[in-house]
Amino acid sequence: MTRQELISLINKKQSFLCVGLDSDIEKIPQHLLKEEDPVFEFNKKIIDSTLPYTVAYKPNLAFYESNGIKGLISLKKTMDYLKDKRNECLIIADAKRGDIGNTSKQYAKSMLSEDGDFNFDAITIAPYMGKDSVMPFLSYPNKWVILLALTSNEGAADFQYMEDKNGVQLFEKVLATAQQWETSKDNLMFVCGATKAEKFEDIRKIAPDHFLLVPGVGAQGGSLKEVCKYGMNKDCGLLVNSSRGIIFADKTEDFYKVAGEKARELQQEMKSYLEQR
Amino acid sequence: MTRQELISLINKKQSFLCVGLDSDIEKIPQHLLKEEDPVFEFNKKIIDSTLPYTVAYKPNLAFYESNGIKGLISLKKTMDYLKDKRNECLIIADAKRGDIGNTSKQYAKSMLSEDGDFNFDAITIAPYMGKDSVMPFLSYPNKWVILLALTSNEGAADFQYMEDKNGVQLFEKVLATAQQWETSKDNLMFVCGATKAEKFEDIRKIAPDHFLLVPGVGAQGGSLKEVCKYGMNKDCGLLVNSSRGIIFADKTEDFYKVAGEKARELQQEMKSYLEQR
Repeated sequence: MTRQELISLINKKQSFLCVGLDSDIEKIPQHLLKEEDPVFEFNKKIIDSTLPYTVAYKPNLAFYESNGIKGLISLKKTMDYLKDKRNECLIIADAKRGDIGNTSKQYAKSMLSEDGDFNFDAITIAPYMGKDSVMPFLSYPNKWVILLALTSNEGAADFQYMEDKNGVQLFEKVLATAQQWETSKDNLMFVCGATKAEKFEDIRKIAPDHFLLVPGVGAQGGSLKEVCKYGMNKDCGLLVNSSRGIIFADKTEDFYKVAGEKARELQQEMKSYLEQR
Repeated sequence: MTRQELISLINKKQSFLCVGLDSDIEKIPQHLLKEEDPVFEFNKKIIDSTLPYTVAYKPNLAFYESNGIKGLISLKKTMDYLKDKRNECLIIADAKRGDIGNTSKQYAKSMLSEDGDFNFDAITIAPYMGKDSVMPFLSYPNKWVILLALTSNEGAADFQYMEDKNGVQLFEKVLATAQQWETSKDNLMFVCGATKAEKFEDIRKIAPDHFLLVPGVGAQGGSLKEVCKYGMNKDCGLLVNSSRGIIFADKTEDFYKVAGEKARELQQEMKSYLEQR
């Protein structure tokens, strides 16, 4: 999906919501456990009920890998189910990969190749190993790297705020350095956590045009309003993720209806911020 | 495997060799492609021929994931094959994972749980997301986290050498900070690339006792002699990895014999450095 297609989708749906498919088998509604593939059944119903309000889906690989090979089969089936909905949503592998060049190339093949089991549109990458760990993911046309910059968790403070002698922090260095590689706003986004909304002003000084993938709204305590105030640009420039707050909002047989309702509420709020641009 | 068991193994085999099972299906000998599971057949033969000279195996997940679900089945079979050899080698998931706490917990389950498909002894972790991304992996007794500190690739220079106002570099901060978490030399190792052997003196000032996993000898150009000169401690404290230099040394039907010979050569060199301690 190109940047222009993503922007059109946001304008059409009046939403920049990303639904995190962190479909932990221990947290999905009990009645699904009698199904042959409970996680896939869960994902299908969540996708159907949220798609009108959503421009992206983001399965976190950990929640599939934790169920072993069976879990990855659930993920593959989910990707197959999304096949005829590719124009209606961007599909992000939240995988936080990154390795030396020839190894990253293998991860890229695994996650982004059209001939592979998954064929994601985008993948999250950890920046610690630098340029050659990132570039192989950019060899797939119209696919995206989403580089971790400032994450939403407590541990972000351990290294990401480290300051060099000019007062530049590590996450700012990541934002600036990655733009010096052969990347552009058409194939690179950054992860910036909603729990750090006050930082979005600084982030936009360094990366005014790039899309930001923003986790941490909802269960982790981030404010959508603050994120939009400081982070939105003329193209919107935001994908705001909610996982637990939508997909686990209800554990009854009506879980998918409640998930759809929660997604709609967020979309309505997003619509109001898009109109205020 | 405990630290003491690992040290005993090193002394018994007079080796601190780790064989990287980066078993790229495009690089294994052609004649294996007629087998039902070529990668598994390759791994079995490599393991059989190298085990006398090797104290650790390190499959890099990328080379299995790139073959999709089929690739992960090859990996599971490899782990099953190693089941009765667990006392003879440490088995490392080179996965470079790391996510917010509740997500890292899922990766830990996937890679380290005895009930899971893989049951690795150790896993490599990227430090960018800090403490809560690392700690869940330490909840499995006698299993190890191997934290990236200074990697062997060119991109290491992009962020790992960043200096704070006191002249402390990011990789040094990782080495020091991770020791302040509830970790010890009994459950934490660091990745330090052989291509940076001159840095091992500094690394040993910060982490004198920890085991270091050292990639980059061989194909990437690092020198075993230099690594040992600056990095070895009284317990050895090193696991030196070789992947391509051993497993792809020969592409004929004798590939496993040549691999065994290459492993033996490295073991002989390692023996001499162990004796010089």
